[in-house]
Amino acid sequence: MEKVNLADKFSRIFEHWSPKIVAELDDYEVKLAKVEGEFVWHEHRDVDELFLIIDGELVIEMRDGAVTLGRGEMYVVPKGVEHKPSAAAECKILLLERKGTVNTGTAESDLTVAEPERI
Amino acid sequence: MEKVNLADKFSRIFEHWSPKIVAELDDYEVKLAKVEGEFVWHEHRDVDELFLIIDGELVIEMRDGAVTLGRGEMYVVPKGVEHKPSAAAECKILLLERKGTVNTGTAESDLTVAEPERI
Repeated sequence: MEKVNLADKFSRIFEHWSPKIVAELDDYEVKLAKVEGEFVWHEHRDVDELFLIIDGELVIEMRDGAVTLGRGEMYVVPKGVEHKPSAAAECKILLLERKGTVNTGTAESDLTVAEPERI
Repeated sequence: MEKVNLADKFSRIFEHWSPKIVAELDDYEVKLAKVEGEFVWHEHRDVDELFLIIDGELVIEMRDGAVTLGRGEMYVVPKGVEHKPSAAAECKILLLERKGTVNTGTAESDLTVAEPERI
């Protein structure tokens, strides 16, 4: 494989809330996304989801509280935990999750990306 | 879980080539390590291994070539591929691999850390 330069990959992402696959590891995928504004409440029933903030600030609301993540901070939303990410300004995030994980989980939304592009 | 601040975690790592577990995702672990100098040739027979450079420069030699990774660059060494990481100066890396993956793979070495600490 080629090495992955995160800045280069982010320069090729133009939409918000549309994760792009940049690497694969066993049965998992590393995705990058630019996000801004509010996402939808959703959960992933069978898989944990890792968020690493590359730039900006992301808030992850959960039913029992919220975490605010800045650059260089990471959080794992456990399987089955409802969450709603949001970002007041554009934020660049790295996601790690099992292949086939859909961004909106079990929620139906216009923001659903059923088959993320590989860049 | 608590959020993980990478800079805070790195400030608690004092040895080289001794990965520390900082997060778990399903059956996988996120580890941080400070590295400097040469590691040993080794392979992981059944698992891919992801390297993300947080600071510094890491060279990963493989039998058919090498990749040089700078800050914000990522590489996945596929299962079964022999590799030898090295860093001319101290480098901070994030590793992602399946639980139980030993840092020196199938190689025997003084650098083997059979049970990485969680920080």
